[in-house]
Amino acid sequence: ARCGFGEAIYGEGKSADLIIQIVRAQLDQGQQSLVTRITDEVAEEVSRHFDHCRANPLAKTLRIATQEIDPPIDDQSHRVHVAVVTAGSTDQGIAEEAIETLGWMGIPVRSYSDIGVAGPQRLVAAVPRLREASALVVVAGMEGALPSVVAGHISAPIIAVPTSVGYGANLGGVTALLGMLTSCAAGVAVVNIDAGFKGAYMAGLVVRQQSQDRDTQQQQSQQQ
Amino acid sequence: ARCGFGEAIYGEGKSADLIIQIVRAQLDQGQQSLVTRITDEVAEEVSRHFDHCRANPLAKTLRIATQEIDPPIDDQSHRVHVAVVTAGSTDQGIAEEAIETLGWMGIPVRSYSDIGVAGPQRLVAAVPRLREASALVVVAGMEGALPSVVAGHISAPIIAVPTSVGYGANLGGVTALLGMLTSCAAGVAVVNIDAGFKGAYMAGLVVRQQSQDRDTQQQQSQQQ
Amino acid sequence: ARCGFGEAIYGEGKSADLIIQIVRAQLDQGQQSLVTRITDEVAEEVSRHFDHCRANPLAKTLRIATQEIDPPIDDQSHRVHVAVVTAGSTDQGIAEEAIETLGWMGIPVRSYSDIGVAGPQRLVAAVPRLREASALVVVAGMEGALPSVVAGHISAPIIAVPTSVGYGANLGGVTALLGMLTSCAAGVAVVNIDAGFKGAYMAGLVVRQQSQDRDTQQQQSQQQ
Amino acid sequence: ARCGFGEAIYGEGKSADLIIQIVRAQLDQGQQSLVTRITDEVAEEVSRHFDHCRANPLAKTLRIATQEIDPPIDDQSHRVHVAVVTAGSTDQGIAEEAIETLGWMGIPVRSYSDIGVAGPQRLVAAVPRLREASALVVVAGMEGALPSVVAGHISAPIIAVPTSVGYGANLGGVTALLGMLTSCAAGVAVVNIDAGFKGAYMAGLVVRQQSQDRDTQQQQSQQQ
Amino acid sequence: ARCGFGEAIYGEGKSADLIIQIVRAQLDQGQQSLVTRITDEVAEEVSRHFDHCRANPLAKTLRIATQEIDPPIDDQSHRVHVAVVTAGSTDQGIAEEAIETLGWMGIPVRSYSDIGVAGPQRLVAAVPRLREASALVVVAGMEGALPSVVAGHISAPIIAVPTSVGYGANLGGVTALLGMLTSCAAGVAVVNIDAGFKGAYMAGLVVRQQSQDRDTQQQQSQQQ
Amino acid sequence: ARCGFGEAIYGEGKSADLIIQIVRAQLDQGQQSLVTRITDEVAEEVSRHFDHCRANPLAKTLRIATQEIDPPIDDQSHRVHVAVVTAGSTDQGIAEEAIETLGWMGIPVRSYSDIGVAGPQRLVAAVPRLREASALVVVAGMEGALPSVVAGHISAPIIAVPTSVGYGANLGGVTALLGMLTSCAAGVAVVNIDAGFKGAYMAGLVVRQQSQDRDTQQQQSQQQ
Amino acid sequence: ARCGFGEAIYGEGKSADLIIQIVRAQLDQGQQSLVTRITDEVAEEVSRHFDHCRANPLAKTLRIATQEIDPPIDDQSHRVHVAVVTAGSTDQGIAEEAIETLGWMGIPVRSYSDIGVAGPQRLVAAVPRLREASALVVVAGMEGALPSVVAGHISAPIIAVPTSVGYGANLGGVTALLGMLTSCAAGVAVVNIDAGFKGAYMAGLVVRQQSQDRDTQQQQSQQQ
Amino acid sequence: ARCGFGEAIYGEGKSADLIIQIVRAQLDQGQQSLVTRITDEVAEEVSRHFDHCRANPLAKTLRIATQEIDPPIDDQSHRVHVAVVTAGSTDQGIAEEAIETLGWMGIPVRSYSDIGVAGPQRLVAAVPRLREASALVVVAGMEGALPSVVAGHISAPIIAVPTSVGYGANLGGVTALLGMLTSCAAGVAVVNIDAGFKGAYMAGLVVRQQSQDRDTQQQQSQQQ
Ligand SMILES: Nc1ncnc2c1ncn2[C@@H]1O[C@H](COP(=O)(O)O)[C@@H](O)[C@H]1O
Ligand SMILES: Nc1ncnc2c1ncn2[C@@H]1O[C@H](COP(=O)(O)O)[C@@H](O)[C@H]1O
Ligand SMILES: Nc1ncnc2c1ncn2[C@@H]1O[C@H](COP(=O)(O)O)[C@@H](O)[C@H]1O
Ligand SMILES: Nc1ncnc2c1ncn2[C@@H]1O[C@H](COP(=O)(O)O)[C@@H](O)[C@H]1O
Ligand SMILES: [Mg+2]
Ligand SMILES: [Mg+2]
Ligand SMILES: [Mg+2]
Ligand SMILES: [Mg+2]
Ligand SMILES: [Mg+2]
Ligand SMILES: [Mg+2]
Ligand SMILES: [Mg+2]
Ligand SMILES: [Mg+2]
Repeated sequence: ARCGFGEAIYGEGKSADLIIQIVRAQLDQGQQSLVTRITDEVAEEVSRHFDHCRANPLAKTLRIATQEIDPPIDDQSHRVHVAVVTAGSTDQGIAEEAIETLGWMGIPVRSYSDIGVAGPQRLVAAVPRLREASALVVVAGMEGALPSVVAGHISAPIIAVPTSVGYGANLGGVTALLGMLTSCAAGVAVVNIDAGFKGAYMAGLVVRQQSQDRDTQQQQSQQQ
Repeated sequence: ARCGFGEAIYGEGKSADLIIQIVRAQLDQGQQSLVTRITDEVAEEVSRHFDHCRANPLAKTLRIATQEIDPPIDDQSHRVHVAVVTAGSTDQGIAEEAIETLGWMGIPVRSYSDIGVAGPQRLVAAVPRLREASALVVVAGMEGALPSVVAGHISAPIIAVPTSVGYGANLGGVTALLGMLTSCAAGVAVVNIDAGFKGAYMAGLVVRQQSQDRDTQQQQSQQQ
Repeated sequence: ARCGFGEAIYGEGKSADLIIQIVRAQLDQGQQSLVTRITDEVAEEVSRHFDHCRANPLAKTLRIATQEIDPPIDDQSHRVHVAVVTAGSTDQGIAEEAIETLGWMGIPVRSYSDIGVAGPQRLVAAVPRLREASALVVVAGMEGALPSVVAGHISAPIIAVPTSVGYGANLGGVTALLGMLTSCAAGVAVVNIDAGFKGAYMAGLVVRQQSQDRDTQQQQSQQQ
Repeated sequence: ARCGFGEAIYGEGKSADLIIQIVRAQLDQGQQSLVTRITDEVAEEVSRHFDHCRANPLAKTLRIATQEIDPPIDDQSHRVHVAVVTAGSTDQGIAEEAIETLGWMGIPVRSYSDIGVAGPQRLVAAVPRLREASALVVVAGMEGALPSVVAGHISAPIIAVPTSVGYGANLGGVTALLGMLTSCAAGVAVVNIDAGFKGAYMAGLVVRQQSQDRDTQQQQSQQQ
Repeated sequence: ARCGFGEAIYGEGKSADLIIQIVRAQLDQGQQSLVTRITDEVAEEVSRHFDHCRANPLAKTLRIATQEIDPPIDDQSHRVHVAVVTAGSTDQGIAEEAIETLGWMGIPVRSYSDIGVAGPQRLVAAVPRLREASALVVVAGMEGALPSVVAGHISAPIIAVPTSVGYGANLGGVTALLGMLTSCAAGVAVVNIDAGFKGAYMAGLVVRQQSQDRDTQQQQSQQQ
Repeated sequence: ARCGFGEAIYGEGKSADLIIQIVRAQLDQGQQSLVTRITDEVAEEVSRHFDHCRANPLAKTLRIATQEIDPPIDDQSHRVHVAVVTAGSTDQGIAEEAIETLGWMGIPVRSYSDIGVAGPQRLVAAVPRLREASALVVVAGMEGALPSVVAGHISAPIIAVPTSVGYGANLGGVTALLGMLTSCAAGVAVVNIDAGFKGAYMAGLVVRQQSQDRDTQQQQSQQQ
Repeated sequence: ARCGFGEAIYGEGKSADLIIQIVRAQLDQGQQSLVTRITDEVAEEVSRHFDHCRANPLAKTLRIATQEIDPPIDDQSHRVHVAVVTAGSTDQGIAEEAIETLGWMGIPVRSYSDIGVAGPQRLVAAVPRLREASALVVVAGMEGALPSVVAGHISAPIIAVPTSVGYGANLGGVTALLGMLTSCAAGVAVVNIDAGFKGAYMAGLVVRQQSQDRDTQQQQSQQQ
Repeated sequence: ARCGFGEAIYGEGKSADLIIQIVRAQLDQGQQSLVTRITDEVAEEVSRHFDHCRANPLAKTLRIATQEIDPPIDDQSHRVHVAVVTAGSTDQGIAEEAIETLGWMGIPVRSYSDIGVAGPQRLVAAVPRLREASALVVVAGMEGALPSVVAGHISAPIIAVPTSVGYGANLGGVTALLGMLTSCAAGVAVVNIDAGFKGAYMAGLVVRQQSQDRDTQQQQSQQQ
């Protein structure tokens, strides 16, 4: 079921044939394709049918376009960007899904790995740079405490992505999800478990408008 | 526990005395106070101690300041604003909490009542105006389908607020919460059940930056 | 355990041998057999023992009879029929189970695919034809909003079939199930998760009587 | 939130003033009003403002019209009707809500009380008359076994209404709800816990068409 | 972990070596061994080390003794016995576990298959013979209604065994478990999901004493 | 809903009038009445209408008969009896319900209070007397460990009654219920949370037959 | 049920009379009494019967002894002590229960209020003093992130006490409980929701031995 | 995500390469490595790259150091030590994880196997030796009653580790977890399901300080 939010294709349980057919339709309409939750095998199969592809096996994503595809834009120059933050290295796959999604949206991104609550000095060290982001995607499993903690330092809107990383009382990610929703921090909203795509998409919507405004402003001041 | 992200006071279970004391401290620091989840009795008691108050019993909020308090700004002139939408009339209290929060943040708001999925033509009629919002707070109980449906028409970011309205299988709002999280729509993030304050705060953060940018732009073009 | 609702055989966990034996008994009693939730391997094995079979691998069904089996009747001529509707393409297997069941009951059917809430214009376009149905089977996963939305446009009784399609907070279909039960729409009743057979059987019972009445009427007017 | 499928007003948490206002609007549009889940106090208050009312305190319903209101039609003469069945006497309130709803819809009804699984001979005795119904609403709390058992005897469609009657492992009605959904009987669909209104509304939709057809037929044969 | 309830060995996750070692110790102490939840492979491996074994692959049990092992005693002559009843044929494996357990306890048994609520006449036909049992083990999956229904006809104590048979809202057997606990029938107690062994063991304890008493009586009357 | 297995009346939510009416019918049929879960007020009201009553406010029971009612038989002389055991003093109300039920059934009882796992020497001291019981009702809240522990010492069948005593993670008794079901002890079956009546009824059924047998034997030996 | 862990009396649901009787028995055996979860009314009633009492209404505790009762020892001089930490001011009641328990055990305590994740600088400021504790009791509601965060700074063992403070997705404290159990921090163990007594008791056991050792050492060095 | 409290590496889902790299970094910093939840294959692969390894396949752990690694210290001489106790033999893997963790921490340990509630005499026999421990790790699956029972005999702090051993109502270990949290014993705190590492780490922290104190004392007395 194409869910209509642009062009992303939810790959889970779709055959290579079905994906190829949807991608063709999208390319014909001038859209770039993003497939999420695609297995390596299906990604390989699909890739054989198109000239310009970008597969990220860790993210389980595949992007397809009619021209060269650039990797996600890693912001260096203080542009409007989204920060993608993970609590631990096992959350990296979901973070990669988020980063690929932002790449596909054309939104610059900065990535912060493994700065969870267990190593508080690493988070503190990152705070000044984190404050430059216009929106944050914070990815965390187990008890999912990181978004609350980050929100104590940052005033930009935070999209929290709970992951299924952990065991036992983590209940497959439900514990992190509930914790993030119950956060005493006000500037945090939550998406589904392991939903790197949705977290990034939401953050992308948040900054897109802002990004365009600034570009306009910049052009105006340059023109003056 | 003051959660630090600004000045809102969570009124549930707090005595009038404790609230008065926190409010005094906030006013002394030049901050306007917003108390949420306050009962009529406590609100009345607290109000007797301050000159400038605005109580909204339906919202269960109380605002206190050192000068006259304006009601929330009802946008008429296409400024950057947040749309606050409810599915049904029983969700109105939570929507009012959201509107008062936006009033306290100084963010313009447009309110849409009772346009849930049961009356599809009413939603369709509202779509053109809804598209002018920079962010939406969508409040719904029972099965919580409204945010998904709105997201089918709108591309601005949506903060979904599930409510505890309903009975039986609504499980006190958990069903609406889970439904909103599982939404096939990408541009939707979710806050806690009945969390009108958090939904509005998040939406406010999203548009604030944008709002300032536009004001700056407007001033710049006017100055030119 | 044959559950007595006619002759359908719940194939899950049954050996080919056991199924063959039950089918033989049914054919001897002059009944057509319908096996649901049958794997490809078992279906193939069983099919080798009978002359007239109709396997639908997507539906995971197998029909067996003592004479030629027609495919489900796709209504074209405004007869009394059931509409089978899906929210997304991954729900199609369950819809196929429903359609095969209606075929086995001899009830005409019209099928509508992938008209979920994400593409609201597609649903709106289908409404006039949907209104001609005497009962609807609406199949949806994730948040399961589609039956509520359809019920806003249609006054025939709707049988909602939640599916396990989705991840995380979908809780294996429980979220869609709860959402459909909590629907603010009155003309909606619900069956078990992924229960395409039960949804269709219930809709079939609803229209069967009506269908016979109309046929009688038609014959009466023709005879006059 | 008016859910649009007719005119029933969900009374829970609505003030007498609000209900009066909605009822006035409905009467002006030529509709009869049905309020469900209304307390005795509110019902009394509302009743003082209208000439033609019918309150049923056990059902917690109030009907209002511009002319005399007849009680629900108790079928005696084998017309198309809905059977409303309860497992135990504590389920009677929900059954009454169903019966009042059918009264408001103008659908004849037969009521069977307290024929749950514990007294199997009472159910068996009722079977021949139950078989004359065109649809059944079966109301049961505790383990909710009755709809499965009835379905073993009857082939008309059954709408199962789980109730919150019971304690401990009944989990406020969730156990009965899950049991009814998991029923091995095919001709059973389920509505929300304690949803007498929805069960009856669904059953009413099922028989309404049929009822009209038969009336037409009868008139035709009489005219001949 | 040998749980001390005599000599039954919980085979799940135990190696053949460990089981052999425990069995040897039991045989040395003059006890017969019963292993439950044993796979075919492990059962075969263990069997190679002992002279007298009885494996039941459907039951997933293995009995081992120092002399010939008789199959469970199928009562024909109105002795004190336990009735083992299943709702459907997919519950048969759990029923077999119960029967093997009673065989190992030396308690006569009568087995009734596939007499669930969907075929009410089959249950009714069995009632007179069922009434001769001193205790019943009633095994049922899906909604687990059978114990309640049987209890309506029978006054001997019933041990209800919920099974994990079913899908969706059966929640892996939890629904049947909760339903059985919430049963409005008083003479029903419940054991764990799929716990054929525990159900039979409990029933065996119930009738053992009684059985011995009757034997004594019989001997006494014969001696007179 | 009279559940048919005897005459106990479930008092929860029933008016004094309704109870009086059911009791009258029972007395007319020569049955003694037992009402459970009755409030003090209703019990008092009902009692005013009958000559022979026995109310136990702690048990929340009321017994009514046409002749003098004896208190439950406290076994002193090693007759066949049921042992009713509680883990803690807050479980006493449920134990009293069990004892009154056994009194109503005419089954002798021995009561053991407050011998839970926290005071292991008290349990150990009771074991020799506990071993004389033909069946045990073990009542425990919180983690519900007592039945498992008792079963380590005793080989008679145990009916475990979980109670809602506790807080937080006790989840209103569900934790004790699940623990008892998962007990590694085989001779334990479980009834609903707080179901003192059902636990006693089941135990009563278990010993009744045995009790009659012994009486017969005794008479036979005396007659010789 | 006295749970045997010394002398604390669980006051919930106990009458003043019953408490007085247990306290008398404890005083006779030379034990000091601690009653937890006692209401103001019962505490007052009980207090009238004894000479030396210490009631703490916020903690809902009452201590009773045969001589003057000192308040909990607030450590100033770097003795072995327990730190009791709260996330927010609404958690204070549970913290007070913990502090009173430590007072009753004779263990010195330092209290830190309202240093939850929302005000990260306040926690950081407290770290040097927190590091002097031999064990910590960390009390937090909502998402319960504080123990994880504290554990990132501290290596002494932490007893985490989840509270029921919050609403919606906090599920009455279950969310905080699950989060604390799933914590990625290793030196954290958890007690029941709102279990200030158990958290303190456990921490008290941890430091008691250590405390005695140090006293012995100190005396030894002083004696030298 | 390295959680910072020492050096244990959570092996689940980590590649041999990643583990080797983290181990190298730890060894370079002079730390010994402990990897938990490592598969046999990965453990073997990693071991090939280091000179001094200790793999425990039952525990699923791997220790790596720059010099010879001793097995865990089995206390014989009444030193300060942790007792690791299991209820049944299937819990042994988790106990082994705990023992290896204590070995890595350098804390002496005594191990008690299979002394669960089903064999009460075995526990009673162990009590005198158990009382010599400074802290206990009690590992139990199914209903998880053992920690409560042990706490009835022992006054040292107990860390309870629930395991996922069992089936049906054990809910994958959640039942044991909830039972342990609800324990009526005060000196018990709980860690995550199957968290042998965390249980041992917590117990290790508890005794470490004490152990150092005693060593100091001993040296002091020896020096005198
Ligand atoms: N209705 C609400 N829902 C969730 N959080 C709230 C609400 N009202 C206030 N808060 C937050 O709670 C914090 C204050 O908590 P407290 O210190 O207990 O007053 C504030 O900083 C708010 O951001
Ligand atoms: N007892 C009930 N249970 C479920 N839905 C109801 C009930 N009573 C009324 N409704 C529906 O709720 C809608 C009205 O909601 P409202 O606008 O809040 O009065 C109606 O159109 C009804 O179909
Ligand atoms: N406390 C109780 N718990 C469970 N079942 C009960 C209880 N008391 C009575 N019952 C059963 O409920 C049936 C009566 O229900 P009712 O017709 O509503 O009075 C009786 O036949 C009893 O077996
Ligand atoms: N079995 C385990 N259960 C819970 N936490 C663990 C386990 N093993 C290691 N850890 C913790 O997880 C942290 C390492 O996570 P990682 O960086 O992903 O290897 C360590 O510092 C440990 O304290
Ligand atoms: Mg912030
Ligand atoms: Mg959209
Ligand atoms: Mg409709
Ligand atoms: Mg039927
Ligand atoms: Mg019976
Ligand atoms: Mg035993
Ligand atoms: Mg630490
Ligand atoms: Mg102890």
